[in-house]
Amino acid sequence: MTQDVVRGAGFDAVVVGAGSGGEVVAQALAGAGWSVAVVESGLVGGECPYLACVPSKALLLAAGRHRETASIDHEQAWADAVRRRDEASEHRDDTATAAALAEAGVTLLRGRGRVVAREPGGPGGTVLVEDDAGGGHRIRWRRALVLGTGSAPLPPPVDGLDAVPTWTSDEALSSPLLPGRLVVLGGGAVGCELAQVYASFGVAVTLVEPQGSLLGTEPGWVGDAVAEALRAVRVDVRTGTGADRAEPLPDKGLLLHLSDGSTVGADRVLVVAGRAPRTAGLGLELLGADVDEGAPLTVDARCRVVGAEGAGLADVFAVGDVTRVAPYTHTASYQGRLVAAHLLGHGRDADYSGVPRAVYTQPPVFSVGRTAAGPDGSPDPAVLGARFDLRGTARAFVEERSDGRLELVCDAASGVLVGATAVGPAADSWAGELALAVRAGITVDVLADHVRAFPTWSEAIRPPAQELADRVRAGGVR
Amino acid sequence: MTQDVVRGAGFDAVVVGAGSGGEVVAQALAGAGWSVAVVESGLVGGECPYLACVPSKALLLAAGRHRETASIDHEQAWADAVRRRDEASEHRDDTATAAALAEAGVTLLRGRGRVVAREPGGPGGTVLVEDDAGGGHRIRWRRALVLGTGSAPLPPPVDGLDAVPTWTSDEALSSPLLPGRLVVLGGGAVGCELAQVYASFGVAVTLVEPQGSLLGTEPGWVGDAVAEALRAVRVDVRTGTGADRAEPLPDKGLLLHLSDGSTVGADRVLVVAGRAPRTAGLGLELLGADVDEGAPLTVDARCRVVGAEGAGLADVFAVGDVTRVAPYTHTASYQGRLVAAHLLGHGRDADYSGVPRAVYTQPPVFSVGRTAAGPDGSPDPAVLGARFDLRGTARAFVEERSDGRLELVCDAASGVLVGATAVGPAADSWAGELALAVRAGITVDVLADHVRAFPTWSEAIRPPAQELADRVRAGGVR
Repeated sequence: MTQDVVRGAGFDAVVVGAGSGGEVVAQALAGAGWSVAVVESGLVGGECPYLACVPSKALLLAAGRHRETASIDHEQAWADAVRRRDEASEHRDDTATAAALAEAGVTLLRGRGRVVAREPGGPGGTVLVEDDAGGGHRIRWRRALVLGTGSAPLPPPVDGLDAVPTWTSDEALSSPLLPGRLVVLGGGAVGCELAQVYASFGVAVTLVEPQGSLLGTEPGWVGDAVAEALRAVRVDVRTGTGADRAEPLPDKGLLLHLSDGSTVGADRVLVVAGRAPRTAGLGLELLGADVDEGAPLTVDARCRVVGAEGAGLADVFAVGDVTRVAPYTHTASYQGRLVAAHLLGHGRDADYSGVPRAVYTQPPVFSVGRTAAGPDGSPDPAVLGARFDLRGTARAFVEERSDGRLELVCDAASGVLVGATAVGPAADSWAGELALAVRAGITVDVLADHVRAFPTWSEAIRPPAQELADRVRAGGVR
Repeated sequence: MTQDVVRGAGFDAVVVGAGSGGEVVAQALAGAGWSVAVVESGLVGGECPYLACVPSKALLLAAGRHRETASIDHEQAWADAVRRRDEASEHRDDTATAAALAEAGVTLLRGRGRVVAREPGGPGGTVLVEDDAGGGHRIRWRRALVLGTGSAPLPPPVDGLDAVPTWTSDEALSSPLLPGRLVVLGGGAVGCELAQVYASFGVAVTLVEPQGSLLGTEPGWVGDAVAEALRAVRVDVRTGTGADRAEPLPDKGLLLHLSDGSTVGADRVLVVAGRAPRTAGLGLELLGADVDEGAPLTVDARCRVVGAEGAGLADVFAVGDVTRVAPYTHTASYQGRLVAAHLLGHGRDADYSGVPRAVYTQPPVFSVGRTAAGPDGSPDPAVLGARFDLRGTARAFVEERSDGRLELVCDAASGVLVGATAVGPAADSWAGELALAVRAGITVDVLADHVRAFPTWSEAIRPPAQELADRVRAGGVR
């Protein structure tokens, strides 16, 4: 504990939560000469480097290489993959990241942070930092409080789940165990990625998703394409059915009863059915920004937390999953940069229009903006959509691939690209230009006229862009 | 020969050269109901599908896979690679492409085309089609003549080259031979790609380039990065020295004498030191558009050939390498689309600003627009450049890569991106957004604010974009 804290002195900024967003704010403000304290009860750096994105990408890469070898020595390949995963995630040791913060002049306080006092009229207030040993310190912020407490797994309402062996994604991404049979509960990005990883190493994986298709927020054909890729590694994909009840078996493992009346035997259940913002116990009521449990902190375009009166609090910010704007590391970092820029006098409003959504399965999924259907699933007359199968490109011919598809969505009147979804080889890479196009308001006419290198996957963009440009010119014929 | 031709009837359009550009024009015009004749003395489809891009990409892919296996059974791997290359290039049989043209209603005439008459005042004229057997037919164009005759290898002035075994790139990309020792004359895109291919299959390759670095039109660090990748597969890279003289050896092979006084022994010389537009014998003098041998056809923004009076001829167009605008398949196809659109009444001016240059070595090179240096190599005060090493990305960390670099160049006053160069993993894929940014006039400020998916290679774009945005804001400080 530094002298500063012992003396109860204030900091220019207090950052509660040192994940991808909080770390960026703290570093930037400290770099500009602010005194900054960071409060973190878990790993400094958040979950991404140790328990989420980084280990999962390392495992996905290892899984892909293992599949290419066509080896059936799964145990050895898994051991190698785990070794690489643990290297990539720094063995879940945050020493280096904590040291980097210290080097930047940031004061790190390990413990849970809670607002316990507010300067009348603001700005400023006091955060109580409580450690596991029951100790506590009070620190004051003078200019900014930044909340970046992230999100926590939301267990689904399945009877008996607490009586059988389960994993959260954090646990699945840090365990050396290779189960014989695994049920994955939840067909979102994490569920699809981990189903592919474990199945690639020979695990009998069943993926259970109550919605009608995987990756339910994307168009149905995307979920179908990913389901096909998962089935190719023998994942038993069951969509449109949920888990009702888990039953431990006396001998070994468990039986999961699904809502369609069927059952699945397994050794373990990986629960990845959703996450909720971590807002409980933060003392938000003192700021007039109290939220219901499980609800996100509402922020304005400068990431200021919106208080009871509906306006952003001048000195209280939130970044990352706790805002539920778009639950990705890249959103958190972006919000961190925005908050720091605002506080340092060169702020700008957030623009989330081009924030991509990527799923790093093989083939990967990359999407941005909106889809051709409205919120109720029926076609939206304000937009036009066009699709193109990647097998129509020279690159697919050269690489002997026949899978993959791209869908573009533009405003029917202006032709401005407002969304894109791609599934297929390297889609996380080449489809990036479509996210920029949405962000920069580029029309399908320019996308169609732009010349792309032969033979790249990006050549798939021109035909549907041209189709849309022609339809916009013809007056928005669907 | 169709009845039309026998009768000497006219066509709406005559296309001389059925390469990537000519094929696109012919298909599009025929699809719109025009009568179209295509004259081709070689393979229908041009060189790209049979003797250039497609077989080279197939070989590069096979070479990469062979390197990954670390096998030393080069002969077997080469045989497999050649089998795959020949499949991908349809065994250099243009039957299917010719049939597709016929199906589209296009009349295909095999032979060399030459303008022999011009309607006084135009439009219209007559093309003589001569086949190898000495036969000839006259066909008339009523509305458009499109010249897409491509380019041919330009042999460098090396004494004795005709007395030793040589290959053009066409020959190297269609031969089943695996030489023991190969000298590659020319360190441009084709030379670098083929040096990597042959070296990967165990050939002792020497790459000779008179300029100071490989890929001489790109910044020096690009050539250095590619040279490093080539040296990693044991290519002997010799830059800054040309070939003076080739000497056949009595026993076997040849000796190449270089301008620095050194010699290289080899079994064969691959000559890829440049290409010249094919304009000889086209009868251009009758159109008032005669050009010197080796010079390109000058075209205006609608790809109309510029005549003696400096204005575009209303009914004579040129597409592809013969224009030397940017000698890529994707430029030729683009020009083909432009010509067809112009003739069908919805034309637009060409915009080549975003045309990418890609080299498909491993790692690949991707570049667009201009570099930070002016034509004389010294820094240009009108632009700002910033670089970023790809090892600074999370993707590099996950994939355990430490190579690769990106350079962005923007207008110093406006901040609009005017150029980008990338070398590194998958650069041909993720750097595509930078070509679109140049084409669409996007500023580095927007490029820096745009959110890219974690962890993708494209995250390398933000730091240099931010650096440039800050410098533009500060008044263009270099």
